[in-house]
Amino acid sequence: MTKMVKPLILITNDDGISSPGIRVLIRQMNRLGDVVVVAPDSPQSGMSHAITISDSLRCEPIFMDSGPQREFSCSGTPADCIKIGVHEILEKKPDMIVSGINHGSNASVNVLYSGTMAAAIEGALQGVPSIGFSLLDYSWDADFSEAENYVYKIASMVLKKGMPNGVCLNVNIPKISAKRYKGIRVCRQTIGKWMEKFDKRMDPNGKSYYWMTGEFKDMDGSDETDIWALNKNYVTVVPVQFDLTSHKSIIDINKILEL
Amino acid sequence: MTKMVKPLILITNDDGISSPGIRVLIRQMNRLGDVVVVAPDSPQSGMSHAITISDSLRCEPIFMDSGPQREFSCSGTPADCIKIGVHEILEKKPDMIVSGINHGSNASVNVLYSGTMAAAIEGALQGVPSIGFSLLDYSWDADFSEAENYVYKIASMVLKKGMPNGVCLNVNIPKISAKRYKGIRVCRQTIGKWMEKFDKRMDPNGKSYYWMTGEFKDMDGSDETDIWALNKNYVTVVPVQFDLTSHKSIIDINKILEL
Repeated sequence: MTKMVKPLILITNDDGISSPGIRVLIRQMNRLGDVVVVAPDSPQSGMSHAITISDSLRCEPIFMDSGPQREFSCSGTPADCIKIGVHEILEKKPDMIVSGINHGSNASVNVLYSGTMAAAIEGALQGVPSIGFSLLDYSWDADFSEAENYVYKIASMVLKKGMPNGVCLNVNIPKISAKRYKGIRVCRQTIGKWMEKFDKRMDPNGKSYYWMTGEFKDMDGSDETDIWALNKNYVTVVPVQFDLTSHKSIIDINKILEL
Repeated sequence: MTKMVKPLILITNDDGISSPGIRVLIRQMNRLGDVVVVAPDSPQSGMSHAITISDSLRCEPIFMDSGPQREFSCSGTPADCIKIGVHEILEKKPDMIVSGINHGSNASVNVLYSGTMAAAIEGALQGVPSIGFSLLDYSWDADFSEAENYVYKIASMVLKKGMPNGVCLNVNIPKISAKRYKGIRVCRQTIGKWMEKFDKRMDPNGKSYYWMTGEFKDMDGSDETDIWALNKNYVTVVPVQFDLTSHKSIIDINKILEL
């Protein structure tokens, strides 16, 4: 009898290896394959696709719980974790990369600032089917119980059927409420922005400093968008690409530059 | 006689306020309008679209040279500089945001890791015509003399004619050589990737650490791409968008998830 080779799954996140969200993701992925975790040793929220280029990196084995996964704690960003995971820690190319479960929304333009999603985009760059998962609950003791089934379901479908080239998935899951989720809906990124405000304060030495705050403004409202669907209690899936070219603007830009 | 109101131009970069590249950009933009600089107080290369959400920010006036611009040194990332510049430092919305001139290429997938380009993308999010400029020369004493004319020309056209919604420009300028530049060419982002290697070393205490290195691999080669055109000595302009949705994959993803 030949031994079945289980799929190899690489996991990271941006809240750090000790966050509850990544534990939920590990538990679900252990049902699907051999899991290796390479995750930041400290919170990396808002780190986007930052990489460590002027400093060295640490990446050491760590024991976090009694599950079958192997785990490594890394001093770098989520994107660093994917790079060192794929090229140094793993013996072979992973079959899937999953990131999260993030404590908080990565819908709309949050995808641009998100370390969770940067890890998934880096996975797509590495040619591996990749998914970032986020729960719309920022609290550390968020209730992931309803989310788990969707995480398992989406990951198992992707593992089975693969992913188009150059694309990864941005999955957002509503905060649990009395109502159950309506199902899964594939969407586009909502056109919106953060309206920042800066709270200016004085330190004890009389020098000023700022806290950045902000409110999200939905400038879209279409029923094709992730924010719309999340408000209707759907689990949303946005296919995300790393080609940032605005192909349709090439003609316009030629005109603007009089070429 | 009414006084002409000059355009208001906000400048940042990712190499830091003391880098030579931003001085060149300031000099050229002083010819076009009233310039305010809000730039990082230290190098922020590879910071991508990171923002400071768990820490406070400093942003203080600084005097760097005898030019007419006003300057502020900020403890944050390039994206932070744009947010605090637009919402706290400037009295009115700027007419243009420019970032750079970066010491090094932001062609192909480098755009994903670039703090210079994140600042321009953040500018587009703020609804301001925005450009990131990069010179393909990583050295601190890079020769910007040939680049300056192109920087001035592209910025003045954008100031005059505006920019499509949701789009900014990624301008890369070849390293100066015996040959002059062939002109400007509007391109798409090259499909390529960094092949990372990790140089593993031991610290004096016997613990391992890594340096990330890598080689860029062009997997494209089309004459529509920025890498191709840069190799042919063109100044390249890629229109970059912040909608990361892979619209063409929405049908495929519905199939993969059996929806």
